[in-house]
Amino acid sequence: MLADLPEGATVLAACSGGADSLALAGALAFEAPRAGRRAGAVTIDHGLQDGSDRRAEAVVRTMVGLGLDPAGSIAVTVDGPGGPENAARDARYGALDDAADRLGATAVLLGHTQDDQAETVLLGLARGSGARSLAGMPATFRRTSGALYLRPLLELDRATTRRACKAMGLDPWDDPHNIDPAYARVRVRHEALPALEKALGPGVAEALARTARMLRDDADALDEMAARAYSGLETSEDGCEVAVRLEGLEGLPRAVRTRVLRMAAVRAGSPPGTLAAVHIDAVDRLVTAWHGQRHVDLPGGLRAFRRSGKLLFGPV
Amino acid sequence: MLADLPEGATVLAACSGGADSLALAGALAFEAPRAGRRAGAVTIDHGLQDGSDRRAEAVVRTMVGLGLDPAGSIAVTVDGPGGPENAARDARYGALDDAADRLGATAVLLGHTQDDQAETVLLGLARGSGARSLAGMPATFRRTSGALYLRPLLELDRATTRRACKAMGLDPWDDPHNIDPAYARVRVRHEALPALEKALGPGVAEALARTARMLRDDADALDEMAARAYSGLETSEDGCEVAVRLEGLEGLPRAVRTRVLRMAAVRAGSPPGTLAAVHIDAVDRLVTAWHGQRHVDLPGGLRAFRRSGKLLFGPV
Repeated sequence: MLADLPEGATVLAACSGGADSLALAGALAFEAPRAGRRAGAVTIDHGLQDGSDRRAEAVVRTMVGLGLDPAGSIAVTVDGPGGPENAARDARYGALDDAADRLGATAVLLGHTQDDQAETVLLGLARGSGARSLAGMPATFRRTSGALYLRPLLELDRATTRRACKAMGLDPWDDPHNIDPAYARVRVRHEALPALEKALGPGVAEALARTARMLRDDADALDEMAARAYSGLETSEDGCEVAVRLEGLEGLPRAVRTRVLRMAAVRAGSPPGTLAAVHIDAVDRLVTAWHGQRHVDLPGGLRAFRRSGKLLFGPV
Repeated sequence: MLADLPEGATVLAACSGGADSLALAGALAFEAPRAGRRAGAVTIDHGLQDGSDRRAEAVVRTMVGLGLDPAGSIAVTVDGPGGPENAARDARYGALDDAADRLGATAVLLGHTQDDQAETVLLGLARGSGARSLAGMPATFRRTSGALYLRPLLELDRATTRRACKAMGLDPWDDPHNIDPAYARVRVRHEALPALEKALGPGVAEALARTARMLRDDADALDEMAARAYSGLETSEDGCEVAVRLEGLEGLPRAVRTRVLRMAAVRAGSPPGTLAAVHIDAVDRLVTAWHGQRHVDLPGGLRAFRRSGKLLFGPV
């Protein structure tokens, strides 16, 4: 993985001090000099628990002891929208982006394992919104900074990272949040996944992670086809936010057509979080099973209706 | 649903005597005469439990009491391959096909509910082989007989069928197999799904059923695109079972390309049940990340390799 990065590049491990990211930092500290890359580490102090600043300092000392340079901690303020978990994530990635920029890092490594991926897939199940919500976390992605984020442990299980820490003489920190059943992820980890393993046999986490990877490919392919189809069918109509030609829409495979319809509704102003499969199904019936329905009401004060060979999305 | 069938058509409910199919039979007996369709019922005696013949007779009496005509039971022998659950299913559908043929039925109704669908999706998770294994049961399908199989209860939950039986004064039979934890489905129903509900909140079964429907659309679309791409790229080579042109393959979206590669390997003789994602990934690297790999060994005594602009599948 390091071999895919430019020679002399700086690579940062994001490290909470937990077993997964500690194993990652240890592995990076060992591998990077041998591969001719510079390895550093960053720990984020979310300021959400008493003594989090001292914990962050302890993690930095461990990083320095591993030979990671630069190694530092960044304190963030968690006060963004969308619930405490989302706010913490936003603050964390914002700080990692800044650090990558400031230190000229080519890549930031994240310690998510196969078990984290399996949990993410099950959390996505609750949304029930198809392939994308089951696609888990990508192995690589970019954000606002130029840095590439990588998840090199996505095919390793959590037990392996714990063994790796032990083998490297590293003492991982067990975040009390990780056993607090107030978090859906904790309930999935300690209750739902073990029950699934018991029902289906061992290897469920691996199967979920593999499923995520395949569904991500599916969602990428179908979303791209839908975007292309949408551009080809897009037209205009007075008084409407979005207009799509019906001819051509009907012949698309349902998986592509429903994505085009969703895209159209969102562009017309329907909020993606509220727009559900049941709305899209109703709009689809305007296309494929029209028998005089007048319109379909959509979240965001919109409605979809047919007129003169077009499917239109306009204000109520 | 009955309105979509020809007038005067005969429709059969497949009824085990359990709450789901009993509610279905009751609803069919009520609706069919009003819709001008003829309604009958069939119960299958699998002969797997003591007294199953008397149970089947009792179900037939209930069916007759509902006014279903014809109403009869068929005894089958469960001795097919693939484990007892598969063998029972094969025997059951074989008998239903025969009955549909014999009675000139246009459609056979099955009592699977949203809960059955959710269980099927979770059972598919264990296979971890992508969208198709999570696509659950189709709402409509055909087998060897001309009859259309329909699952009209796929969006109703099990509690509703139980309430419907009560409202119709019908006394459902509780199959002891349905609480025997030797069956993976029973463990999913009584352990895994409740644990998921507890972790993720109510509505998990509904979300799983909705997911199944969306992933079925995705799988249908991508499988069809792959079949079309395969026909376009198929060529031949002496001594090889299957040959595919590399040019054109590289440019396909990964979701389509991996399906084409799977299709090619299966046509070359690799057994679909043994051919895993890890094999297809290795073949895909021959296409997209070739750096001199000689070949990839596949189940079934096959190997895949590159030669003169083609990807070839031949015997080891």
